[in-house]
Amino acid sequence: MMMMVRQRVPRRQRLIEVGMDLFCNRSYEEVSIDEIAEIAEISKGLLYYYFPTKHDFYVAIVRYAAEQLLQETLPDEQLEPMERLRTSLNAYFTYVDRHAKAYLALLRGGVGVDAQVASIMDTVRQTYIQRILHNLAGNTPLAPAQLIAINGWVGFVEAISVSWLERREISQEELCELAVAAFLAVFRLQNKRPVVH
Amino acid sequence: MMMMVRQRVPRRQRLIEVGMDLFCNRSYEEVSIDEIAEIAEISKGLLYYYFPTKHDFYVAIVRYAAEQLLQETLPDEQLEPMERLRTSLNAYFTYVDRHAKAYLALLRGGVGVDAQVASIMDTVRQTYIQRILHNLAGNTPLAPAQLIAINGWVGFVEAISVSWLERREISQEELCELAVAAFLAVFRLQNKRPVVH
Repeated sequence: MMMMVRQRVPRRQRLIEVGMDLFCNRSYEEVSIDEIAEIAEISKGLLYYYFPTKHDFYVAIVRYAAEQLLQETLPDEQLEPMERLRTSLNAYFTYVDRHAKAYLALLRGGVGVDAQVASIMDTVRQTYIQRILHNLAGNTPLAPAQLIAINGWVGFVEAISVSWLERREISQEELCELAVAAFLAVFRLQNKRPVVH
Repeated sequence: MMMMVRQRVPRRQRLIEVGMDLFCNRSYEEVSIDEIAEIAEISKGLLYYYFPTKHDFYVAIVRYAAEQLLQETLPDEQLEPMERLRTSLNAYFTYVDRHAKAYLALLRGGVGVDAQVASIMDTVRQTYIQRILHNLAGNTPLAPAQLIAINGWVGFVEAISVSWLERREISQEELCELAVAAFLAVFRLQNKRPVVH
């Protein structure tokens, strides 16, 4: 039994990596089970064994991507708070840039997004909110309006990411400065900083 | 021909109103075609004539709600710019409060949200962005970073709405002040205003 479980992991993982490539470059609708099986060089039967439906496969990929994103944006506790925020934001924008098509589909398209996928996206948001809470206030509880403002700022970052990926009119550095400036403005950490560059 | 079209409008409209009630109080999954037909007092056959699938019906309702929301939040050109913004925001929060369950489902749930629904939601966002552009700059084009910032602020308002509806820890008035303060901060219209209340 143990042996079976051990053997299973790498192939499942390889399928997810194939899927990441596919779903990041084409839409949910465009990717077919046939194509996934062909690229991964496995039978459709075996693919269905791991992922009974295309949607199950998609959910597994979104979950994997969410974990990867959270991992790559882990705050570096050795940095000063603002540098920590800036570094994490840059890692976030780099990640969404590398997976632009999938990110836009998730945040705007609606195709393939159901309650399961939405719940993974919500977990990512909640993790960011917890990280910000920790960075802002340690373990001191914030006022309700501040907690709502943090939620708002996370929505701000998602929305500027979508807008940036759609038009690419400013550099990633400018985008990051905009997010940092909005953060400072919303949380009154530094009132004199210019807000829109 | 004209007569047929005229007759059709009120019944379709009535169905949409029944649907608005249903989908605002229960989730997409919970509402059945049988129930809609029963409440609207029409046969399932006739319901299918107007809306071939439950999803078509849902899309029609979301479209109707989007138009209603945009109508109720129309900026009052007679007011001063900040009062105009505040009044529209208050109308927005009143609307989403009245349709809280449906709003949360649309923004977070993922159930029933497909490309068509996502496109209606995007049209609403784009309309708000156009209204803000008009209010901020008349017809002067904004810098790309400012346009991205407006997109971000619309995302901020959606995210604070979700967070507020989920927890109800602050009043609608405080929520509105938070949105106005974020707007001012992000657009540097008035630097001295306190940001989080």
